Order: sequence, then C-alpha cells, then structure tokens
Amino acid sequence: MSDHPAGYDHLVDSLSSRGVDIAAVERALRDQRIETPSWGYGNSGTRFKVFPQPGVPRDPFEKFEDAAQVQRHTGICPAVALHIPWDKVDDYGALRAHAESLGMSIGAINPNLFQDDVYKLGSVTHPDPEVRQQATDHLVECCEIARETGSSAISLWLADGTNYPGQDSMVERRHRLRECLETAYAAMPDGCRLLVEYKFYEPAFYHTDLMDWGAALTMCQRLGDRAQVLVDLGHHAQGVNVEQIVAYLLDDGKLGGFHFNARKYGDDDLIVGSTNPFELFLIFTELVSAGPERTKDVAYMIDQSFNIEPKIEGMIISVMALQEAYARALVVDYDALATARREGDVLGAYSLLQDAYQTDVRPLCAKVRQDLGASADPVAAFRASGYQSRIAEERVGGNQMGWT
Amino acid sequence: MSDHPAGYDHLVDSLSSRGVDIAAVERALRDQRIETPSWGYGNSGTRFKVFPQPGVPRDPFEKFEDAAQVQRHTGICPAVALHIPWDKVDDYGALRAHAESLGMSIGAINPNLFQDDVYKLGSVTHPDPEVRQQATDHLVECCEIARETGSSAISLWLADGTNYPGQDSMVERRHRLRECLETAYAAMPDGCRLLVEYKFYEPAFYHTDLMDWGAALTMCQRLGDRAQVLVDLGHHAQGVNVEQIVAYLLDDGKLGGFHFNARKYGDDDLIVGSTNPFELFLIFTELVSAGPERTKDVAYMIDQSFNIEPKIEGMIISVMALQEAYARALVVDYDALATARREGDVLGAYSLLQDAYQTDVRPLCAKVRQDLGASADPVAAFRASGYQSRIAEERVGGNQMGWT
Amino acid sequence: MSDHPAGYDHLVDSLSSRGVDIAAVERALRDQRIETPSWGYGNSGTRFKVFPQPGVPRDPFEKFEDAAQVQRHTGICPAVALHIPWDKVDDYGALRAHAESLGMSIGAINPNLFQDDVYKLGSVTHPDPEVRQQATDHLVECCEIARETGSSAISLWLADGTNYPGQDSMVERRHRLRECLETAYAAMPDGCRLLVEYKFYEPAFYHTDLMDWGAALTMCQRLGDRAQVLVDLGHHAQGVNVEQIVAYLLDDGKLGGFHFNARKYGDDDLIVGSTNPFELFLIFTELVSAGPERTKDVAYMIDQSFNIEPKIEGMIISVMALQEAYARALVVDYDALATARREGDVLGAYSLLQDAYQTDVRPLCAKVRQDLGASADPVAAFRASGYQSRIAEERVGGNQMGWT
Amino acid sequence: MSDHPAGYDHLVDSLSSRGVDIAAVERALRDQRIETPSWGYGNSGTRFKVFPQPGVPRDPFEKFEDAAQVQRHTGICPAVALHIPWDKVDDYGALRAHAESLGMSIGAINPNLFQDDVYKLGSVTHPDPEVRQQATDHLVECCEIARETGSSAISLWLADGTNYPGQDSMVERRHRLRECLETAYAAMPDGCRLLVEYKFYEPAFYHTDLMDWGAALTMCQRLGDRAQVLVDLGHHAQGVNVEQIVAYLLDDGKLGGFHFNARKYGDDDLIVGSTNPFELFLIFTELVSAGPERTKDVAYMIDQSFNIEPKIEGMIISVMALQEAYARALVVDYDALATARREGDVLGAYSLLQDAYQTDVRPLCAKVRQDLGASADPVAAFRASGYQSRIAEERVGGNQMGWT
Repeated sequence: MSDHPAGYDHLVDSLSSRGVDIAAVERALRDQRIETPSWGYGNSGTRFKVFPQPGVPRDPFEKFEDAAQVQRHTGICPAVALHIPWDKVDDYGALRAHAESLGMSIGAINPNLFQDDVYKLGSVTHPDPEVRQQATDHLVECCEIARETGSSAISLWLADGTNYPGQDSMVERRHRLRECLETAYAAMPDGCRLLVEYKFYEPAFYHTDLMDWGAALTMCQRLGDRAQVLVDLGHHAQGVNVEQIVAYLLDDGKLGGFHFNARKYGDDDLIVGSTNPFELFLIFTELVSAGPERTKDVAYMIDQSFNIEPKIEGMIISVMALQEAYARALVVDYDALATARREGDVLGAYSLLQDAYQTDVRPLCAKVRQDLGASADPVAAFRASGYQSRIAEERVGGNQMGWT
Repeated sequence: MSDHPAGYDHLVDSLSSRGVDIAAVERALRDQRIETPSWGYGNSGTRFKVFPQPGVPRDPFEKFEDAAQVQRHTGICPAVALHIPWDKVDDYGALRAHAESLGMSIGAINPNLFQDDVYKLGSVTHPDPEVRQQATDHLVECCEIARETGSSAISLWLADGTNYPGQDSMVERRHRLRECLETAYAAMPDGCRLLVEYKFYEPAFYHTDLMDWGAALTMCQRLGDRAQVLVDLGHHAQGVNVEQIVAYLLDDGKLGGFHFNARKYGDDDLIVGSTNPFELFLIFTELVSAGPERTKDVAYMIDQSFNIEPKIEGMIISVMALQEAYARALVVDYDALATARREGDVLGAYSLLQDAYQTDVRPLCAKVRQDLGASADPVAAFRASGYQSRIAEERVGGNQMGWT
Repeated sequence: MSDHPAGYDHLVDSLSSRGVDIAAVERALRDQRIETPSWGYGNSGTRFKVFPQPGVPRDPFEKFEDAAQVQRHTGICPAVALHIPWDKVDDYGALRAHAESLGMSIGAINPNLFQDDVYKLGSVTHPDPEVRQQATDHLVECCEIARETGSSAISLWLADGTNYPGQDSMVERRHRLRECLETAYAAMPDGCRLLVEYKFYEPAFYHTDLMDWGAALTMCQRLGDRAQVLVDLGHHAQGVNVEQIVAYLLDDGKLGGFHFNARKYGDDDLIVGSTNPFELFLIFTELVSAGPERTKDVAYMIDQSFNIEPKIEGMIISVMALQEAYARALVVDYDALATARREGDVLGAYSLLQDAYQTDVRPLCAKVRQDLGASADPVAAFRASGYQSRIAEERVGGNQMGWT
Repeated sequence: MSDHPAGYDHLVDSLSSRGVDIAAVERALRDQRIETPSWGYGNSGTRFKVFPQPGVPRDPFEKFEDAAQVQRHTGICPAVALHIPWDKVDDYGALRAHAESLGMSIGAINPNLFQDDVYKLGSVTHPDPEVRQQATDHLVECCEIARETGSSAISLWLADGTNYPGQDSMVERRHRLRECLETAYAAMPDGCRLLVEYKFYEPAFYHTDLMDWGAALTMCQRLGDRAQVLVDLGHHAQGVNVEQIVAYLLDDGKLGGFHFNARKYGDDDLIVGSTNPFELFLIFTELVSAGPERTKDVAYMIDQSFNIEPKIEGMIISVMALQEAYARALVVDYDALATARREGDVLGAYSLLQDAYQTDVRPLCAKVRQDLGASADPVAAFRASGYQSRIAEERVGGNQMGWT
C-alpha cells in the first residue's frame, strides 16, 4: 500500500490518463519558490486599529524564526524579504548567519519612503531637493544592504502622490522621480535588480506617481535593463484584467516579480486566493504559457498585512494557495488549448482551462511537500507543533514589531 | 457705493433678471448649519503614516477653540460632533459651558466600537455575547452623554464586518446587531435620534455588516421612527448615484443626515467637493427639491480626516464648498425645470441645472457670511488672524489628540 | 465493477469519510431546477454588432426544441422563461402543448418595456400618463399570459432611468412606478408572484429607477407579499458583496429569484461562473445555510446573452456550473463551520469553505445527471448528437429570432 | 454701451484685476478646434434599443449639413471625422467639395473593424490569417481614403478582445496586432498619423487587446513616431486619474488626441462634461500647462452616441462644454500655482484651481463666438433657426443613417 497522501494515487491515475506528465509537474512544483515578507509576521492593521497579537516578533531575528516555520511546513519558502528600517540591524552578517542557521536566506530589500515626517508631500518626488536627497540616500543605503546581505533585488514601493488637484505638478514629480531612481539604479550591486511597483491609489488619494503598469514600465524603460516592473495583485482598479498585464510584461521582458495577496475592493492585503482563486489560476497559466526562459527571473513574493488572522498560519495558507494555483496551471492541456484556439472553439478552449481549474490538486501538492521534507498537511502540522503557543508564552516583554 | 463683496451687485442683477428671489436665497443660506467633527481637528492619517501637525489640540476643550475659528469665519458652524471616548471628559457640564462660552454647542455623539482589543471580530455583531454586552453598554453610555450634553443625535458608524468568506454568519450577525441596537434605541433620551451609517468596505474587507443604504434602512425600519439613515459621501461603490439614494431616503422620511467629504476611490475623507463638485450640487438640488418640511431634521455634518492638510483651513474650505453647493441649488429655476421635464425636453432640463451650477455664487456667499458677522473671505481672514501660528507656539507639551 | 462515472467511487469514499451524507446531497442535486431563458437561444449581441449564428430559432416553438436539448443532457432544466412580445404567439395553448410534448414547461413571463419607440424616456416611469398606461397595459397583458400558460411568476426588468442630471424627477418617477406596479400586481393570477429586478446602470446612464436591492425591496414592501426581489448577478457595482444581499433578502423573506450569469465589469451576461466561480459557490452556501423552508420558492433562472458562443452549448455549460456550485455548497461541513465561528477561528472557518470549494464534485454531478436519465458528459453528448449541425441545416429561410 | 454679451464687461474687469491677459485668453479660445464625428449625427443607441429620430441624415452629405450647423453656431468645429464604411461614397472628391462648400473639412478617418461577420473572434488579432488580411486591407483602404480626402489622421479603435479566459492567447494576439498595424502604418500618406485608441472593456468582456494607455503606448513605441495614443474619456476603469494619463503621454510626446464624451460607469458616450465637469477642467489644465509646443498636434475630437438626445443640439452643448473647460483652464494663475507648489502650500494650490474653475466664463466664450461670427447663445440660436423642424420635414424617405 502506498504511503502517498490520501487521493494522490487516484489523482495521478486520472491526470495520467489525460496525458499529464506527472513527473514534470512534480518537478516544477518542487522548484517553485515563494518569498515571504518579514513585515507579514509583525502586527499590522487598518487606519482604524491595529490589533496586537500574542507572540509577535520583537526583532528581525524572531521574524526569521517565524518564517522558518512556514518553510518547515511548506518547503518552498526559504527566503524572507526585508523592510528597511523596520529590519535594520547593526550587523547584517549576524542576521544573515541567523537566517542560514535556520535554513533560510535574505530576499528582496524593501526601502521605506513613507514613514518619515519629511515625506508628508512626497519622497523622491518631493518639491524640496533636500527631501529628495534624503530619500535617495535611503535608496542607496538599501543598495548597500543588498550588497551586504547578498540580496539580488531592491523592491521599491512608493507611497508618493497627491491628495488634491493642483497640489503639485504631476509631470515635474515624474521627472524628479526619474532622476532619483537613476542614482539608486547606479548604486545597485552587480546582479541586483530594481523592481518598480505601481499602485493606483492609497495612501495618496488624488494621484499616485506610479499609478499603473504603464507608468512603471515607462520608468523602467528609461532606467535600463535591470529595472523591471513589480505586480502587486491588490494595486489595480476594479475590473482590470491582471493576467493580461502579466502576459504583456512577460512579452516585453519586463516582469520583475509579484507581490501576491488578495483584495475585494481596496488594497486589502488578504490571504492569497481568498477573493477570486480563479483569477490567481489564470495568472499562473500565463506564467506557465510564457515558458521557463521568460519567467526564470520572476520574483514570487507575498505581500500581506494580516489584521485579524494568526500570522504564521495565514502565511502558510497563502503559500498553499500559490502552490495549488501553480499546480492547476501545470495540468492544463496546452496542446489541446492551442488547437481549440486555432479552430475558434471558444467554449472548448474555455472548458480546457476549467477542467484544469476544477481538478483537486491538493493530494499532488501534499506529495510534493512530503518529498521536500515538509508537511503533507501544513496547517494541521503547524497547529499540532505547539509553536504558536510557545512564542505567545516566550515572547513577552520588549516591543512587538509592526508597521513603525 | 456699495460695500458688498466684489461681484455681489452684478450677481444680484443677473440672478434677479432670471427671476431668482435673492432675499429668499440669502435667508436660506443664513439658516444653513454645518456641524464639524471634533476628530477633524486632531491628527489623523492612513494605515501607513500619521503626520503630526504643529498646534493640534491636546484635549476636547482645545478642539472647541479650533472649531470656534471655523464658526468665526463662516458663521454657520456652531456645533461640534463628539467622538467617545476620544472626547471623554469627567465633566460634560464643563465642556458644554466651555463650548457655550465660545458661542458653540455640542452636536452628535459618535460612539467608538472599533478601537478596543476585544472588537477584533466585531462589536455589536460579535459571536461572543460578552463582547456584544460591552459594545451595547458603550452605546447606552453614549445615550447618557447625549442626555448630559443636550445632544439630539447618536451618530453610529460600525466598523463591523469580516475579512474572509465563512468567517462568520452574515445573517446571525445581522440579528445580533439588531438586538443590540434595540437596547441602545430604547436608551436614547427624548427627542434624540439614532443615525445609522452604512459603508460598503473598510476596515472589514470581505463584508461590512451595514454595507449600503438598503441594509441601514431595513435596520431602521425595525428599530422605529427615531432611527434614520446617515449618508456618508465616501461610503459607496464606484458608479453609485448618491443623490438618488438621498432622494429615495427623503421620499421615505428616513434620511437622518450626512457625513460630508470627498473621495476619488476609497473612503478618502478629503475636503468636500474636491473630487466632483457637480455631484455635491446635485445632492443639494435633491434636498432643495424635497422642500423644507421633508428636510427640516436632516443633520448636515462633515466627516473628514485630514492627512496632510492644515486642519482648520481645510475645514473652512469644506464648509465653503457646502455653502456654495447649496447656493447653486437654490438658484435653479425649478419651475422651468418642471416644465422641461413635463415636455420631455431632456437637454433643456439638463441645461437648467448647468445654468445654476455654472453661476459663480461666491459673492453671494461672501455677502451672507458678512451678514452673519463672519468673514467675506474666510481663508484669507483666518490666515491673517495669526491663529494657526499662535496655537503652534502655545500648544507644546502634552499629547496631541488623534485617532487613539 | 461500478458503472459510475469515472472518479465517482473515489469521491464518495472521500466525502463519506468527511461525514458527508451522500444520499442527501444527491437527492438535493436531483431536485435542483434551473430555468433557461427563451432569448438565450436567439441571436443577441452588443450595441456594436450582433453576430448571427446558423440554426438559430425562428419562432418560440423552435426555442423550446433547443431548450429541450439542454434538458435532455442536464436533466434539471424543464422550464423556459418567455419574453413578451418576442415570444408572443396567437395560441398559448398550442405553445404550452408543444412544450409539454417535449417534456418541457413554461416558466416566468418577462414583459418588455424597453423596445417600443414611445419608451425613449421611460415606460412605467414616463412623465406622460399615456405612455405609462401603455406600459401598464402590457404588464396586465403579461399577467393574462401567465394565467393562460400556467406561469407562476412575472419577472420584471425595467430599463427605465435617465441619462442626464435634471432630465426628470427621480422621486416623481418612483411614485409613478409604484402606481403602475400596483395595477399590475392586482392583475396577477392567484399563486403568481411579481419578481422585481434591479440594475445599477445600463441602458440608462445617469440613474436607473430601480438601481439596487434597496430600491427593489422598498418597492416590494409597498406592493405586498407576492412581490419579491430578483437578483441578477451582473447588476451590481464593482466590489459589491452579492452573497450578502442574497443572505439579507432571504432573511427578510424577500428573495424571489435569480438571474444567473457572469460579468467582469458591466452586465456582460456571460456563462455562469466564468469570471469568479468562488463567488457563485458562496452564493450557494448562503442558500444552503438558509435551509429549504426559506428557499423553497426561490426561482433559479439563467439570463444570458451569448454574443459569440454557440448558444445551446453555452447554456449547458452554465447549467453545469450552477450544479457544481450547488454540489460544492452541499458538501460544506456546516457543523464544523458553526463551531469555528463560535470559537472565533477565522482561518479554520475560511478553510472549511475552501475545503468544500476545492473538492472536484464533477463525478457526483455526472452521477446525478445519469440518475435523471440525462448525460454524464453533457457537452460531449450534445456535440456527438449532431443536433447543432442538423438545425444549422434545417433552419434556413425565415427570420432568426433575436432581441427585436 | 457695450454690445458685448451680458456679463462680459464685468468678467473682464474681474479677470484683469487678477492679472489675466484677456487678449491672450480670447486668442487661444478663437484658435481652439473641436472635430465632431459624422456618426454623432446618425441614429445610435444601446444593445436594447435604438430610438430613431426625425430628420436624421440619410447619407454622409446630409451629415455634413448637420455638422455645419454646429460650426455655424460655435465657430470652432469646421472638421468632421468620417467612419468607413458608414461614410463610404463613390466619389470622395465630391464629398470634400460638398464639405468645403459648407465651410467644412474632412477630419480623421475611422476604420471599422467590428461589424463584419468574420470579425466575431477578432479582426487584426484573429487567429485566422485570412481574417487579419481582410482587416489589414480595410486599414490600407482607409489610408487611401485619407490620401484622397486630405485627412491627416487615421483614428483607430479596435473592438478586438475575448469573452472568456483561455479563448485565445493574449500574447499571440498582440503579436498579430502589431504585424497588421505595421502594414497599415507603412501605408499612411505623408503627414498622416495613426491614432491608437485603447479601451478597457466592451464589446469584449474578458479582455480587450488594447486595454489601457500602457498597451497603446507600447504598441505605438514599436510602430514609430507617427503612431500616437488616443485618449477616449469613457474608456477607463472607475477611479482612474485620466488627467494624469494625459500629462504623462504629453510628457512622452505620445498624446495623439482625444475622443471627448462623458460617462458615469461604462462607455456611456454622453454629452461632454455632464458627469464630472471638474475632471474635464483638470484635463485642460494639463494641456495648458504642457504649453503650445507639446500640444500643437493634439487632435481634439468628440466621440458620442446620443441615444435619447436631439443630436445637433447635444453636439453644440458638448462643444460649449469643451470651450468653457478650456476657458477656465486658461484663467488659472499658473505663476501663483508654481509658487504654492514650491512652498508646499497644498490648500493654496488647490484653491487656485478652484478659483479658476468657479469662474463663470460663459460671457467670455459668448464673446469669442461672436468674434468668430458664430452665436453668443448657440442653443437658443439653433432652436430659433428652425433647422431641426426643417430637416424633420424634409428628410423623409430613404434610410436614416446609424451604426450599420
């Protein structure tokens, strides 16, 4: 009798009979990597309230311990993105060594250009050159941290924008932004990329300086090959087809990476796949269709802010949603799809995607996690581990980390 | 030579020639009342950052002093809404006396059911009856404060909702909510109304318990005649016709009041009229059309949260925008409009609204403010008064008030 | 060896081990009924173009033949909604007999108040009482047709609204509408219900007279118990939580029925479940949660307009999507859900829904269809039947039916 | 006594005292040119109904006569955009001569790639190369017509897109599109530009091949300098900041022109300025700010589809809205604005825009129209002219033109 996860053998039979190359699918799933964000382990919330949670980390080292739990149970999340200055430490070598001792590594460096009092009217877009200099210095500092930590990406989200028509010149701000980013771009260590994120609203309400993929792309075109666009799933207007943006950016060689999360209306930063898992699947079909060559440098990162959810468990569920979406995209019959498209068989083509989407791929994912030495049922395993209650008990005293 | 504001005489000639009853318009404008929110004078911001501002009040008494500046320069804002517990004081008689000494009064009482740690999963909708009891007790306490302060309205905004499908039963929550509100309703002093606000998203992201006017209205229907719906201009989905909701609620005798502000996408709480002043005008045409009898109890309140703007000046500009929108609505030729509608003259009817909207009513508003003993040019007068720099100098030490 | 559909036995084992009462689930699925719309079999399109399709029906009798194919392969769609005057015939007895000879029946009667030249500025809301009379007469005529055809529902969608601010009084239109509907309501045969549909935009662009569930509900409250609200999935603003509206209407005993379809942005009338199948599932969890007593009179109807899709096949796929969504909702562990909710286990409750949603219920649905004498694989069976090419060949000459 | 329009002298005094250079403003207004669309004079409607109107043109020659009325009363609309094949004639020389005899000229040529039966699944993006060839041939034919008519722009809107995920490869369609447009681009006569329009939804509902300015811009970048982006005000998702897109495209030298109209939710094609006139004003402030050099080639075109409005009168009102928006943008104090921005005076900068926006510029526009030999009050003059009733009487028999 097989010690495969329940349903695995049945699923493999079924997929094999549809011509799916199981070994190739499992290989791809084993190679999948998702980076989790250090700030996802700290307290966060809305403008109305941050609900503190027991056991939340008090320093970047403890964040890595929490992230290591996600890695332990999923097996595909060894890297953690840092946010500077929230994760500023005196000795990045020590942080890196701590990470490595946990089997972890340091991912993208995220500068913070929104929490200093001087940034009220902007950072790299500010009318005052001194403020821009301070912001640029911070970007350069982050490049230096990337060098020290061996990070290969600066992941830049700008809160810059205005609240009122007329408040500032949108065009002059764009020019200031470009000038500052050129300095940061030049300061990056070899092999490092600048991932430029866009967002169409919040915290600025009238206009955001990088409001959509077009704005980010034209900025990256000017900066150079190592500047690429970062797609955060929650940063679009309602009704926008996100998978199309992904496909077009891949086509142009300009997709740098993702910030995965879910949203119903605003930038809700919810658990991945919790609003429209079908859309998530469609994004992954574009990635699989583009092929390994075009996607090999794409950074798959989670960006979430859990207001009411247990943080480690929420992160595990998000990672599983990404694994399942990828698995579904891998079992699409792309040859049949190409035929249906060529023949103008609208419903046949659509049904091929639905076939893959409706497949219950969870046993396959469980098997892959087992093969990686992680957990077949990560949430149950994590709950059973007692880790959560242990940190709630141990991490008393000190200041919990959060968005400050 | 007239000492009327520049342009006033010309405007009066022009309006009179169109048959406008200037005296009636000015009388209506003199009678307009806008209530400003105590929390609009304190620090506020987004989830990303609160930018502290110099001179921000350190207690409710100082908030009334700031509000008195708005009243001094506009003449139509004598009342200030309180938010409990932000404005909790030991002696409401003293606060009331302070207000009255400034020529001010206490407006609606706003309970806070979103900042206690126990409210993480809801307040009056919470699965745990103890939490609901605590929330209900707070509502009853606010009714008591209304009694003490002579306030005639409890203005209730609920942050309650869920972040994930399945998290809680939407129907059971509705029942719990109703039960708690029935208790609060019964506790209101005579002559006090319960204004029930709705909001379609944020801070809960999957569902809000009172998500739209239909939800608020059906709740009010159950509670009784003294429960009415509160319309906040920023609490609707994109594309919703807000003036229609206003018109329908008026038609049903269920419009309790407004929270005025502006927004481009989310609940941005911007200066009134800064996104679409034409929409604001259309809301006022519905109010004028409904007539004084149907609108006599409507509470006109501002609800704003200024992230980057000087607070008193921002409030003055909002009040002026409301005054100008009302003035424009008052100079519509409603008789001609009725005729055009009856004749199916689509463009004639539309043009009559545009005629009124395009009229530059600022001289008329300036004249009314002068007549009220306030300022013809409130922003200039406030800037010239030196008040802002005085409070920036004097209000040092102590904790600035904000959303905490 | 079982002759069950592939995967059925495995699925039953798996569900049984989770405590699912398979017999009860299958019974519920066998009892599910979906009504298809006569107009879904005719040509339709966008304002830019209607693409005619070969074999489209030339009269209501041929529409029933096409609908009988959907019933043949799915087993749960015996009724067809009529649209008057598109489906006007001299002898409704003959149409009914034709339907019955095909094992079919006549469903809801849909009046048309938008295609007569006099309705340019409205029908039952028109400023001109003669136009309103004509519209009301049509409603009364539809009540008469309901009597003749044995239909138990008048399903009313109004295109009424305005394109410009000021064009007409929204409140007076509401009063005219109420008056006309009162006449229609009184004319309904015994046992017949008036299902009042709302829509937030299109074809009127400034305001729609019944723009949301609140407007439809307050109208139904005035009309009486036999007036209930109809929810069309494509008639909401972006970001609206449709399942919440369903839950609230059920709670108030005012959910009359559905028009099922899918949309990405506008009222796209696409195949059910093609945009966000998770949302469809969530709607069904509300229906299942409400229980059989509260939902026994809900009318489950499809309303679609296929612009480019083969019509019969598109309808079959929509029906299957509804069956699968219902099946998933039936296998939710509601007891465990209640416990998780009571305990405030946000992620546990959410995961219970995800568990059911991710279950591949297609073998169960195939089995139920087999049991009903329909097809295990409806699309393949329909494609293999040659029906589509037969009608394409036979139905030449005459005018294809469409939206005219 | 001045024979200036009522209010003109007062307005000039007032503006002069604020430092406005009246002569320069009037000169700019006299030089403004708005192109009206031939299809705006024919019948149009929604997918539900086209309401035919008396006197609608029966051929392109009659459309020019109607357009000449708009020009007669506004003085700034001498050119008319053609739509091929709706405006196809045997002898373009004759059409051009007819136009010139009316003081009119031929504007942009608009190809139609959405009304042939073969375009069901796309035109220049279609999987079938024969369909793409037919579409490309039509584009080349339009280039030829541009040559014959002396038109300087091909204005291309594509209806191409898909209705379902999977239906076709979005990336391959993009490549096909590029290839076809390269052929069309090469076929343009000297001095002719290709204006590439984008639209985020409708008539395709899942994805539109050119869905936003980013997609149109990257296409134009590949085509060459004579390809520029066309902004239609109704083609954006809700919440998008259109004036920012205008500003960025101007900054990149890639703004080809506008299709002006208004919308509340969808692509409603309503009268310009009827939803949010403040937004229209903000767009014009960006154009004025960019300066004459950057804007000299921008094509200002109206694109409207009047469903219920009298067409000529609707067009006149739209033109006036554009004139007034431009006039308001011209009286902004840009020097003071620059100072306020530099000083971080958020509310001062905002108020400078509001000052200009609230100015009642109608007397100035009336004066400019008078100076141009047109009408001070165009709607009244047109109504008084009896033109509408004359065409209603004369244009009987024949087929009214519309979207077919």
